[in-house]
Amino acid sequence: MNFHDALKWRYATKKMTGETVPQEKVDRILEAIRMAPTSMGFQPFTVFTITDPEIKEQILPIANGQTQVRDGSHLLIFAAWTEITEERIEDYMNLTAEERKLSLQELQPLRNMLNGAASQSPEKMFEWSARQAYIAFGFGMAAAAVEEVDATPMEGFNPEALDELLDLPSKGLRSVLMLPLGYRDEENDWLAPMKKVRRPKDEFFQEAKVAEMA
Amino acid sequence: MNFHDALKWRYATKKMTGETVPQEKVDRILEAIRMAPTSMGFQPFTVFTITDPEIKEQILPIANGQTQVRDGSHLLIFAAWTEITEERIEDYMNLTAEERKLSLQELQPLRNMLNGAASQSPEKMFEWSARQAYIAFGFGMAAAAVEEVDATPMEGFNPEALDELLDLPSKGLRSVLMLPLGYRDEENDWLAPMKKVRRPKDEFFQEAKVAEMA
Repeated sequence: MNFHDALKWRYATKKMTGETVPQEKVDRILEAIRMAPTSMGFQPFTVFTITDPEIKEQILPIANGQTQVRDGSHLLIFAAWTEITEERIEDYMNLTAEERKLSLQELQPLRNMLNGAASQSPEKMFEWSARQAYIAFGFGMAAAAVEEVDATPMEGFNPEALDELLDLPSKGLRSVLMLPLGYRDEENDWLAPMKKVRRPKDEFFQEAKVAEMA
Repeated sequence: MNFHDALKWRYATKKMTGETVPQEKVDRILEAIRMAPTSMGFQPFTVFTITDPEIKEQILPIANGQTQVRDGSHLLIFAAWTEITEERIEDYMNLTAEERKLSLQELQPLRNMLNGAASQSPEKMFEWSARQAYIAFGFGMAAAAVEEVDATPMEGFNPEALDELLDLPSKGLRSVLMLPLGYRDEENDWLAPMKKVRRPKDEFFQEAKVAEMA
């Protein structure tokens, strides 16, 4: 299946079978998430993987009973950083210096940009982090499709309850997205036979025009 | 090149050659963007494509002189909807009813959810729209890599100036992201030889643990 067929094949699976996704497929999906570009390469979020049935059962009501949370074999949770600490900047500067064989002095412009991001209001900072997680979330869903693994993008859950359950605030994190990975239960999924709905090309894409001067 | 090699091959190209990306490649990248999942499938954003050298020249200073804006052959601009109007909901309801052969009555739960999204504060609504655009942005970058087309994710521009230039506010739109498509100028791009920096797996991914009860 080529990339485009894979993107057409995927859909927001509503009912999964419970079958386990092989670890090597999960690993490739995670690697795509890790490879996703983010602002300044900073990756200001953490991805949790949950396979423990007991924890999934506890998350089920937090996700309004969406059964894919339980019936997907791997549940990914994307949690955005609520603050950019000095330590996080330091870690990233050191990592970049090491990987690129550059001195910290040569990387001063990067540090200045990160300090700029860190000096935003907490709300803006969090929103910026969350948006970066959405890019990686896109990469993860595309990778799942390539692996012919089903995945359900989920924003509809109670993030405060999830954060409390997983003790995220103490780690400077807030959950923004969930992605169960598993296999579609084609017979019992009402959405499986439905056509994919997308806005028509000529309306979704537009040729930009410059505003007329008054 | 397989999908994972493509994701490793891509990078945020800093210098492009000016060579034109063939239209069939651009079309496949756009189609991936259109196929991207969004909350309720609503796709609350519009994607502009710019090929006109004069418009690109006008955008150059708005993008702080980042030359890929000019040297990429196609410049994509992702603009999120600033409001969910009745008309937009109506259009989407009709489209869904037609594509899925369902009555508007059967789709009432979808309408209720869309009305819920529309009743958020303008700031939250816009942020929700913007986040959906980021998922599609991810799909677009993955698709570009598959096509061996270079692309530079850009948040660093003056959105107000761009919105004014392209008359976006009158269309209920605000720009959030730019994506020039083109080809890397390997000799003149300082980033081309640099190693990709990503946080290590064992730190970026974590096994979730349930908080201890006090």
